[in-house]
Amino acid sequence: MEFVVVGAGMAGAFLALALGRQGHTVTVYERRPDPRVNAVHTTSMNLGLSERGLKALERLGLRQEITRHVSPMRGRLVHNQDKSLRFSTYGDGGILAIQRHDLGVQLIEAATRSANVRFVFDTRCVGIDKDLPAADFVSESGNAFTVTPDVIVGADGAFSVVRKHMQRDERADFHQEFLDWGWRELHIPAAADGSHRMADDVFHLWPRGETMMFAHPNLDGSFTCSCVLPFEGPRSFDALRTSDDVESLFRELFPDVLDLVPDVGKVFLDQPTFKLVTTRTSPWHHDGKVVLIGDACHAVYPFLAQGMNAAFEDGLELADSFAARPDSPRAAVERFYQRRKPHTDALAEMSRQNFAELRDTVRSPGVRLEKACDVVLEKVLRHRWMPLHAMITNTTMPYADARAKAHRQRRILQGAAAAIGAVALGGLIRRFR
Amino acid sequence: MEFVVVGAGMAGAFLALALGRQGHTVTVYERRPDPRVNAVHTTSMNLGLSERGLKALERLGLRQEITRHVSPMRGRLVHNQDKSLRFSTYGDGGILAIQRHDLGVQLIEAATRSANVRFVFDTRCVGIDKDLPAADFVSESGNAFTVTPDVIVGADGAFSVVRKHMQRDERADFHQEFLDWGWRELHIPAAADGSHRMADDVFHLWPRGETMMFAHPNLDGSFTCSCVLPFEGPRSFDALRTSDDVESLFRELFPDVLDLVPDVGKVFLDQPTFKLVTTRTSPWHHDGKVVLIGDACHAVYPFLAQGMNAAFEDGLELADSFAARPDSPRAAVERFYQRRKPHTDALAEMSRQNFAELRDTVRSPGVRLEKACDVVLEKVLRHRWMPLHAMITNTTMPYADARAKAHRQRRILQGAAAAIGAVALGGLIRRFR
Repeated sequence: MEFVVVGAGMAGAFLALALGRQGHTVTVYERRPDPRVNAVHTTSMNLGLSERGLKALERLGLRQEITRHVSPMRGRLVHNQDKSLRFSTYGDGGILAIQRHDLGVQLIEAATRSANVRFVFDTRCVGIDKDLPAADFVSESGNAFTVTPDVIVGADGAFSVVRKHMQRDERADFHQEFLDWGWRELHIPAAADGSHRMADDVFHLWPRGETMMFAHPNLDGSFTCSCVLPFEGPRSFDALRTSDDVESLFRELFPDVLDLVPDVGKVFLDQPTFKLVTTRTSPWHHDGKVVLIGDACHAVYPFLAQGMNAAFEDGLELADSFAARPDSPRAAVERFYQRRKPHTDALAEMSRQNFAELRDTVRSPGVRLEKACDVVLEKVLRHRWMPLHAMITNTTMPYADARAKAHRQRRILQGAAAAIGAVALGGLIRRFR
Repeated sequence: MEFVVVGAGMAGAFLALALGRQGHTVTVYERRPDPRVNAVHTTSMNLGLSERGLKALERLGLRQEITRHVSPMRGRLVHNQDKSLRFSTYGDGGILAIQRHDLGVQLIEAATRSANVRFVFDTRCVGIDKDLPAADFVSESGNAFTVTPDVIVGADGAFSVVRKHMQRDERADFHQEFLDWGWRELHIPAAADGSHRMADDVFHLWPRGETMMFAHPNLDGSFTCSCVLPFEGPRSFDALRTSDDVESLFRELFPDVLDLVPDVGKVFLDQPTFKLVTTRTSPWHHDGKVVLIGDACHAVYPFLAQGMNAAFEDGLELADSFAARPDSPRAAVERFYQRRKPHTDALAEMSRQNFAELRDTVRSPGVRLEKACDVVLEKVLRHRWMPLHAMITNTTMPYADARAKAHRQRRILQGAAAAIGAVALGGLIRRFR
C-alpha cells in the first residue's frame, strides 16, 4: 500500500520505519528542515526512552543503535532548597535520556535504509480531502502540489492540520486544555575538562510547589534543563522582568543551579516560553483513508515522559493492524483505534496527575511514606506488587491496565493502614483504661 | 463606545438591542440574509421562552410586544406508544413556544428603533485582529472590508469564527462533544378549518428510549416537530432508507403522528439531519477588546430549552457590565465572564442530563414517583421547595444555584425515603415475629 505521513517527528519517523519494513511505500512530508543536514538547535525537553519505547525499537532491530546515543538515568535525584539531595531509584530499567535531535536523525536514517521510504522536508501540509484521499502541500519555495496515496497519516502533532481537515463537518469530540504553567529551556554546560558538573546518571529534579525545574544529562557533559513556572502570579514568567528578578528567584529556589548556568538572568529572559497542552479527541480515523497517531490524537503533558514512548507504541500498533487486516484498511484503522484509545486516555489522565506530584507532593511526607511502602512491598512481593511509576516506566503493561493495578494496590495499602491504625488505637485504649 | 457584533441570531440581536438602549453605537454583521425581507424557512427547533428570557425582554420593555407571537405551553403531554396520554404541569409560568424567525424579526425591528443600531446582512466575518481590534468581512458580492470598533463581540454561534481567531496562540481550553443522536424537522399542518390537530397549549413529547419526538404549537394551527434518532444502529437515520422504513418506524413508535404528517415517509427522507453539539471554553474575552456571548462560548444541547434564554441573560449581563465599569472595558468583560461562566457550565451539564431523562426516564416509575413527591412538596412547602425543571423554567435563579438547591432537595427526599423504608421494615418484622 501507499502511505503519506504528515510530520517527521517521533511519531511520523517511527511509523515510516515500521511501515517501510513491512514493504509499504511511504512518503513523509515535514514542514521543518531536514535535521540530518540542519543541526540548528530546536528547543525541546530531552526525551526519556523507557521500556515501551525500547521494546518498540527492539522490534525494528534498532535498540542497539539508538542506545549508543542515550544517557541512562537510574533514578530521580531531588535537590532540596537547602542544597541537600535525596535519591529514589527508578527500579529495574530506568529511563534513558536522549536529545530529540539525535533520536530524530537516527530514526530518519534507519527508515531511509528501506528504498521504499522517502522523506520530503520544508514542505507544509495545507489541507486534505479525506474522501479521495488527497493531501495538499506547499514547499518552502512556494511550489504547491497534491498527492493521492491509499492512506494519509496525520503525525503532525497537537495542532494537527490533518486532524482539523479530517474532522471538519464530522461529529468529532475534541478536548483541549492548557496548563497555567509554561517552561523555558536552560543549558548547564560541561566543565572545562568535558565532565558533567552534576551526577550524570540521574534525573535531576527541583520541586518547589508552584515552580519546579528538572534536568537531563547529555552525552557531551552538558545538561538540558526545563524550568517550569506559572504564567501569572508573584513568581511567574510574567513577574520576572529583569536579570535581577531571575537571579533572586534562582538564589532562593534553585541556589545550586545559580552557579552552573552562566549569566542565568540574561539567558533566561532571552528564552521563549513554551505552553503545555493536553488534547483528547475522537474519531482518530476516517473510512480507512485517513488516520491520526501520536500527539495529533492524544497530546499529553510531558511529566511522565511517555509522549514519545506512546507514539512508538502507536506506530507499531498501526503497522501491525494493517498487517492483521490487509483486506480492509477500514478494519485496520478501527482495530488500531480500539486497541490504543483506552490506553492513551489513561496516559493523559496519569500525566496530568503526575504534574501535581512532581511539583509538590514529592516533598510531602504522606506521599513519601506511601512510596516507601510501595518500594518495600515490591521487594517482598516481587512481580506481584509494583509502584505505578515503575509499571509505566519499566514495563510494557498497557497504560489503562497499569492504572487499574495501581488503584487496586492503593486500596490494599489504605486498607492495611486503616487496620494498623485500628490495632494501634485498640492498644492505646487498653493501656489507658 | 462603538461595538461590532458578529452574528444577528438570538444572542447578537438581543445584545444589540441592550447596548443600543444604553447609547452605544452598534453595528451587527450577519452572514445570512435579512429575515425581515427574506421569509425563507430556516429549519430550527422552535424556541422556548421561559421566565429568564421574559424577564430580560421585560427589562428592555419588549415583553408585551414579543408575547403577541407566542404559543403558551402550560405543561408537557406525553404520548405513549399505545396512544394514551399523560400530562404533567410546568407549574406557574410555563414555557412560551415561538418560531425562531418570528422572534428574530421582532428583536431586529426593536433594536433598529435606536438610531445608533445598524444591521448588515449577507456579510461574513472572515477574521479578526484581536489586539487592534479589527474585524474583516466579505459581503455576498465579494466586497472585502475591515472595521475597527472599540469592542468586537462574537455572537456567531457554536462554530464561532471570532472565537477561533481570538483564541489563536492563546492557552485556550476548549471542549466540544456531539451527541450520537441527530434530529430532523417535521411539520404537522393545521386542520382544514385552521385549528390545531392536537392540544395547542402543551409541549408534546413522544419518549421512546433510543428515539424520541417532540412538537411545539405554532400560532397558525400547525406544529413544528423535532424527530430525534441515533445516527447509527437498528433504528437510526442510517437505517431508514425508504419511505416504507420510515412509515413502519412511525407506525410502531409514533402511531398517532402517522396520520398527522402527510406523506411522512417521503418528507422525512427529504429533510437534512442536524447534529447536536455542546461546547465549553475559556477565555471568553481578550484584553477588553473582544468578547464572546451565547453559543459562541457555551453551546448547550437544546433539551432544557434554555439556550436562547441564557443568551438573553448573557446580553443583559454584558451590557450591564459595560455600564458598571465605563472606565475599563477590560474590567467589564472580566466581570461579565465571572458572573456568567459558573452558570453556563451548570446549564450545559443539566442540559446533557435532561436529554437522557426526556428520552427515557420520563417513562420510569421511580423517576415519576420522585417527580410526584416533588410536586406535592412544592404545593405543601410553597417557595421553600421547587422541582429542578421549575427552577430552570419558572424562575431567574442562577443556573448553578438551581442545581445546588436541587441536589439538596434530592438528598432530603432520599433520606426521607430511607426513613420510611426503615419504619416499614420495622413494622413488617414486628408483624411476622
